[in-house]
Amino acid sequence: MSATIAEKIFSERCGRPVRAGEVVMAPVDAAMIHDITGPLAVRVFREMGGERVYDPERIIMLFDHQVPADSIPAAENHVFMRQFAKEQGIHNYDLLEGVCHQVVMEKGRAAPGEIIVGTDSHTCTYGAAGAFATGIGSTDMGFVLKFGALYFRVPESIRVEVDGKFGRRVGAKDFILSLAGDIGADGATYMALEFAGSAMREMDMAGRMTCANMAIEMGAKAGIVQPDAITWEYVTARRAIEPFDLAGDDDAVYRDRRHYDVTDLAPQVAVPHNVDNVVDVTKVAGTRVDQVFIGSCTNGRYEDLAEAAEVLGTSDRFADGVRVIVIPASRTEYLKALRAGIIERFVEAGALVEAPCCGPCMGGAFGLLAPGEVSLSTSNRNFRGRQGSTQAQVYLSSPATAAASALYGEITDPREV
Amino acid sequence: MSATIAEKIFSERCGRPVRAGEVVMAPVDAAMIHDITGPLAVRVFREMGGERVYDPERIIMLFDHQVPADSIPAAENHVFMRQFAKEQGIHNYDLLEGVCHQVVMEKGRAAPGEIIVGTDSHTCTYGAAGAFATGIGSTDMGFVLKFGALYFRVPESIRVEVDGKFGRRVGAKDFILSLAGDIGADGATYMALEFAGSAMREMDMAGRMTCANMAIEMGAKAGIVQPDAITWEYVTARRAIEPFDLAGDDDAVYRDRRHYDVTDLAPQVAVPHNVDNVVDVTKVAGTRVDQVFIGSCTNGRYEDLAEAAEVLGTSDRFADGVRVIVIPASRTEYLKALRAGIIERFVEAGALVEAPCCGPCMGGAFGLLAPGEVSLSTSNRNFRGRQGSTQAQVYLSSPATAAASALYGEITDPREV
Repeated sequence: MSATIAEKIFSERCGRPVRAGEVVMAPVDAAMIHDITGPLAVRVFREMGGERVYDPERIIMLFDHQVPADSIPAAENHVFMRQFAKEQGIHNYDLLEGVCHQVVMEKGRAAPGEIIVGTDSHTCTYGAAGAFATGIGSTDMGFVLKFGALYFRVPESIRVEVDGKFGRRVGAKDFILSLAGDIGADGATYMALEFAGSAMREMDMAGRMTCANMAIEMGAKAGIVQPDAITWEYVTARRAIEPFDLAGDDDAVYRDRRHYDVTDLAPQVAVPHNVDNVVDVTKVAGTRVDQVFIGSCTNGRYEDLAEAAEVLGTSDRFADGVRVIVIPASRTEYLKALRAGIIERFVEAGALVEAPCCGPCMGGAFGLLAPGEVSLSTSNRNFRGRQGSTQAQVYLSSPATAAASALYGEITDPREV
Repeated sequence: MSATIAEKIFSERCGRPVRAGEVVMAPVDAAMIHDITGPLAVRVFREMGGERVYDPERIIMLFDHQVPADSIPAAENHVFMRQFAKEQGIHNYDLLEGVCHQVVMEKGRAAPGEIIVGTDSHTCTYGAAGAFATGIGSTDMGFVLKFGALYFRVPESIRVEVDGKFGRRVGAKDFILSLAGDIGADGATYMALEFAGSAMREMDMAGRMTCANMAIEMGAKAGIVQPDAITWEYVTARRAIEPFDLAGDDDAVYRDRRHYDVTDLAPQVAVPHNVDNVVDVTKVAGTRVDQVFIGSCTNGRYEDLAEAAEVLGTSDRFADGVRVIVIPASRTEYLKALRAGIIERFVEAGALVEAPCCGPCMGGAFGLLAPGEVSLSTSNRNFRGRQGSTQAQVYLSSPATAAASALYGEITDPREV
């Protein structure tokens, strides 16, 4: 019987054919908790009478939102989580490895066909590995920690076929921003976005992670990139697993099928204060920027930093008056960039390069904006107040557009640098 | 007439012979303001009717305590200061260059014989360049911004003669901690410490900055290293100035003369909760540490990072369960360390390497400690609550001792690694 990727994953994991709309209790292959949402999940687990987690090897713990601790309560949360990890035999990456979604991917904790949950909205990132991955609340996570399973309504899917070839300095982030603009912030609510097509097949894993990561910005429960040789190469390099086919069937029932050609796509910018307020960069070129952030689970990988560095080129310095904050998404990505000379170039040009963490994306205590300030960010959300003052303006773009804008102190089309 | 270095500086700058105890109005050669204390100084300047600062070229502005902005009010302070700099024609290093004291030194803004004030207690650091440099309050700074001068009581001096040769992995920080232990936290209140002797002459500028930096920890108004060829080489590489002699006279009137021989000095550790609670490292070896901080205006220079890296050697990783935070004191020092491969080694070994800033030293919103946690820090103060919870313990040491302790997860004698 024909099925979408999401239906196939739930069918396989539930041991019987299930279709969109059915409510199932499905086993959870992996569960990720971090320093902000983890403590509440643990408390719920305790309140449910939890003594031992269902399987410590399926739980991924790390700290990335408030590292190093930005307050005494944050430090106390870390201590609390460390104690829980020790007690339960959970491997805790602590604050050492980087941003949760990058770490889960690079440590091989996500694979095609798996159901993965995390107490973070961008858990959908692992769809880049062909997993059904979704963010859940801390209360649901308390249940998962205890039982290793969770109720799901099997989602309907939107098939997104992406063809064509990206132009110079245009890429995955531009595509996914344009999709958000097209579908809208609630246009895929509770659905799975199923990404396929030749442009997706030619996209590297970094780009696929960027696309899957932002599925939630359209309200989607998951964003799944149809696994192929590139997926399996990435996953099998990280864990022992036998490749298998996992694709949406042509005659499966999709809520919608959308076709895009990226050949003539311009660099895209999401303008304040919603992710789906998306325009061609040319529409906002010339807008002054005070701060540029290159990083996050959306765009903090080596490929993103290399893209920004390529635009920086041999320029001496970023523009006067622009604060450039660069945060690699993980220790591994940091070292790759460092060894390629990219960290040195950024620091020479005047960037603050910070240790891997969520940084300004979440606007906790890191790189906040004053009223009236303008930020261009490679992260995933530009909601009012997300990076500081509610009177600040946050724009979202690709690393290439961010680097071009940092060079000129105003939003700049990277194709013209 | 014989005089101490402090007396000679005030005599020269006041244009008449002055001696300890006299109250003088002295011209200020340079004035440093940063993001925490600067805004209040500017407001006082305004309240005094200030319209134009006395000389924008003598004012040094930069941000280091809350960078990138750790709160909306911090971001607003930055905006306020940027506007003031622009209006007054003051060069603003902003958040780009690093920790204030390191930046003043490396940009050649301090030289022998100068009187320099800053709204930061560790302004005394510039005594390493043979300046009389001291921290002042924001109210006094408002006066300085307007008039370019300030009342001073010319301080009495303690002559500190340091001889002998440091043993392996023992150095400037160990000496200055031992001196603090000997003199006590209020043993040099309102005096100038005048450092001389063969061990000082053999000390590099990084070590001299460490010593001068901590003069305030004994209550001293200033800590002045007698200028010599090393001083002049450093200063003349950074500004056009003709070297001259500046030394305390043998028959000058000193409040005290102290002689030290560092040959058998052990690595020193200041134990909670005062800088003058100083013991040999052997007395506290084995104490568990949760966090190790290598950085600050006291010990964040290339030489400090190299000293730590030498102890790290070829070890794979710092101890499990220890958070190691490394923050170079400036962009220049960061790049030196990066190009020497030291940043890479730290990151490989599991350190968080952050962009130059004050970091955990000031305990604002960066690397705070939970109750019961223990920190070993190369910074200058271990007051209760300085790095987070009042129930945390902060120890101070050299970079070598910090690195050795990070390797073993407990306070460790670096001579035994």
